[in-house]
Amino acid sequence: MDIRIQKTFEALFALEDVREIFRQSLPNVTSPEEEHSIKEGINKVRKILDDIENCTGTPQVRKIADNINIRSREEMYINIQPIQAAGRLTSEARKALIAYGDGYSVCDACSKPFRLDKIRSPPIGPFHEQLASFLNMDVARVVPGARRGFQAVASTIVNKNDSVIVSALAHYTEFLAVEAAGGIVKEIPVNEHNIVTADLTAEKIEAVKRETGKLPVLVIIDHFDYQYANEHDVKDIAKVAHQYDIPFLYNGAYTVGIMPVDGKDIGADFVVGSGHKSMASPAPSGVLATTNEWAPKIFRTTQMVGDVTKRKFGVKEVEMLGCTLMGSTLIGMMASFPTVRERVHNWEEEVKKSNYLIDGLLAIEGSRVLSEYPRKHTLSKIDTSGNFDIVAHGHKRKGFFLSDELSSKGIVGEFAGATRMWKLNTYGLSWEKVHYMVDTFQEVAEKYKIQVHRTDHFDGNK
Amino acid sequence: MDIRIQKTFEALFALEDVREIFRQSLPNVTSPEEEHSIKEGINKVRKILDDIENCTGTPQVRKIADNINIRSREEMYINIQPIQAAGRLTSEARKALIAYGDGYSVCDACSKPFRLDKIRSPPIGPFHEQLASFLNMDVARVVPGARRGFQAVASTIVNKNDSVIVSALAHYTEFLAVEAAGGIVKEIPVNEHNIVTADLTAEKIEAVKRETGKLPVLVIIDHFDYQYANEHDVKDIAKVAHQYDIPFLYNGAYTVGIMPVDGKDIGADFVVGSGHKSMASPAPSGVLATTNEWAPKIFRTTQMVGDVTKRKFGVKEVEMLGCTLMGSTLIGMMASFPTVRERVHNWEEEVKKSNYLIDGLLAIEGSRVLSEYPRKHTLSKIDTSGNFDIVAHGHKRKGFFLSDELSSKGIVGEFAGATRMWKLNTYGLSWEKVHYMVDTFQEVAEKYKIQVHRTDHFDGNK
Repeated sequence: MDIRIQKTFEALFALEDVREIFRQSLPNVTSPEEEHSIKEGINKVRKILDDIENCTGTPQVRKIADNINIRSREEMYINIQPIQAAGRLTSEARKALIAYGDGYSVCDACSKPFRLDKIRSPPIGPFHEQLASFLNMDVARVVPGARRGFQAVASTIVNKNDSVIVSALAHYTEFLAVEAAGGIVKEIPVNEHNIVTADLTAEKIEAVKRETGKLPVLVIIDHFDYQYANEHDVKDIAKVAHQYDIPFLYNGAYTVGIMPVDGKDIGADFVVGSGHKSMASPAPSGVLATTNEWAPKIFRTTQMVGDVTKRKFGVKEVEMLGCTLMGSTLIGMMASFPTVRERVHNWEEEVKKSNYLIDGLLAIEGSRVLSEYPRKHTLSKIDTSGNFDIVAHGHKRKGFFLSDELSSKGIVGEFAGATRMWKLNTYGLSWEKVHYMVDTFQEVAEKYKIQVHRTDHFDGNK
Repeated sequence: MDIRIQKTFEALFALEDVREIFRQSLPNVTSPEEEHSIKEGINKVRKILDDIENCTGTPQVRKIADNINIRSREEMYINIQPIQAAGRLTSEARKALIAYGDGYSVCDACSKPFRLDKIRSPPIGPFHEQLASFLNMDVARVVPGARRGFQAVASTIVNKNDSVIVSALAHYTEFLAVEAAGGIVKEIPVNEHNIVTADLTAEKIEAVKRETGKLPVLVIIDHFDYQYANEHDVKDIAKVAHQYDIPFLYNGAYTVGIMPVDGKDIGADFVVGSGHKSMASPAPSGVLATTNEWAPKIFRTTQMVGDVTKRKFGVKEVEMLGCTLMGSTLIGMMASFPTVRERVHNWEEEVKKSNYLIDGLLAIEGSRVLSEYPRKHTLSKIDTSGNFDIVAHGHKRKGFFLSDELSSKGIVGEFAGATRMWKLNTYGLSWEKVHYMVDTFQEVAEKYKIQVHRTDHFDGNK
């Protein structure tokens, strides 16, 4: 690790040790020993700061809790890992983790009716309202991951052997949520461009009806799928679903938090988003939003009564299991939210960068893009069987030669060893980094005698 | 906030701003502007360190992301909040949050078969094995909160209208997990000491059988309940359950992570623990452990096949919904684990401190302890209707007078305004802090002319 980055972590850690002294001391009283430890701690931080300033020193802390490496991927490298890009924390979220790490940290001011989304300090209640408004839906709840949103909806709507329509590019967590509820997934085939359309959806609904004698009970579609990040026609699909009176779940794991999402305009009955995938939030986090029509069903409160005690917990929501996302995970999500809310308006620029990179890769003789092109998303699947994979065949490191070349230039996150079909994500990278990446990929190509059509990537019209 | 604590947060935050510069810069290259920003950032931290050392300066950062207060409850006060005590992070966990905050931070080295509990770096796989061994169970998974453990078990075992035995002191999340699965809770009444016994369990099982014509399908008992933290006879209850061939779920939300728990010795089919309640972990986190007999059922892998694509996701576990606890939440849990694993052996000392405090409160004329006594746990419910509540009646601040008095002495976490029956938790407090608390409570009593029998709390035999 670069020594300055290493030392930045060490300074943070040394300050946590100082903080621990305050935690152990009596209120407003410190003993001479504690004062001594604080002084020592501060001096330690000062020395580390000298090292940062002068690029000096050697690593003193290699592990957390003796067996966990310090993770410096985001500081050291350009990270193009397909699912990590938009979950990278803002600095405010990192500060929130520092201040709210303790387990039940958000519960200090919890009072009647004792439910997470009712807490006003920290402003968790208002955050829930802002989330609903951000998605243009009526009601929102935070959940421990998008999958827990699918689960809540499926568990409410899907009964044993019910059919649920998903796409042939559906994420596996949709499969699992339906399976857990006892239902059966039915996939809509994609068209020749790997796109799910409204017509294909209508055909599938009809087919399920013929086959099972019953209409499907739910349609779940990923706006952009996880395989190609192709855009699917969610608005028209929602219309089709509604023509059959089937509710529509919009899976926004790859949209909510990076591009504008208007649930009402789409016609979504449910909007699910992922905090750690697309909202610059710690894991596991996510959002489930719905309409006033569906909220009483999905967020129904418990009806169970203790047969002996007659206890009721009426305000607690069954599918949420009461409170959902406590502590630092939620506060991290909240701390990133002002940034997230704004950044969705930069989506066009993000897509431009994505296309610039793809064009730069296409300029390398033999590259293909497997995702729809021009790109409408920052996640893309590319095929380098015709160039880097050929090099790999003759290289003693096989496919790892590409990872080696890239990481030596500070680029990581491609699937290590993969040189045929692989995914990358440019979300949130500066133009400077995107330029650097194109240059690097092309330099690697040239190093291995692959032809590069250098002008191609400037016009975006290949 | 004490200025040194305030400034410690400010130094941490200023270092996060320095770190952000590295995140934005190209790999191994910094521009003159970035160098300037680093230098400025370092100088800012230095000035803050001066302030910490000299107790100088004024708060410069009041909020995170403009609307979230800095939480300094653990640094500023002795916190006796009933559910927060054992979820307080270790300093290693706080460092882990710093290093692993980004959404999918633990997924850097995820490779086949692509499941969280198989990841070796960071050592998530080994952690799962250690968790199982720590609880003396065969298999363990991390879950987003104990409630998600109850849910996984109930969803697997409980069918519509099945009965599930819980105690009259059961936590509401057990109610919800059963309700979500379509089952019905049946409460075992407590005896005259507010204890759930094996005999009462057997009677309840028989009663349910008579009433519904079917045996209950699951017994869930909290080893120590959330209301009194009384100890219930889990070992004999497990025996009774097994005599009827009913599986037994041990709810260790108030034990796993603070006292030794031996699942096999108890006879538990399932052990559920809470990370944020008792394992010094960020929320939402928890553990679900089971036996080799039950693991294939609870952790069954998906059988769903895409009808069009023929896709299978065979390694993914249905009830877990694939991966469960990613990122900082899991890494925080792992970073605390070495401490947690050791601290359970200090349980007797923790109980001694608990009894010392309760004795100190009982020495105040008119106090009663509602929990079993002597205490076997650090969480206790006390009744001060006979002293502090009488003061409250004549005080212009009513019940808040007690909160005012306590917080002015640096003690927080009692339910604000409560002066009749309320709960507190001494877990993890030093003897110094416990002594300080007894002195403070007794001084408050004397200030309001309540008699204190000062010697009582030294013998523990009241």
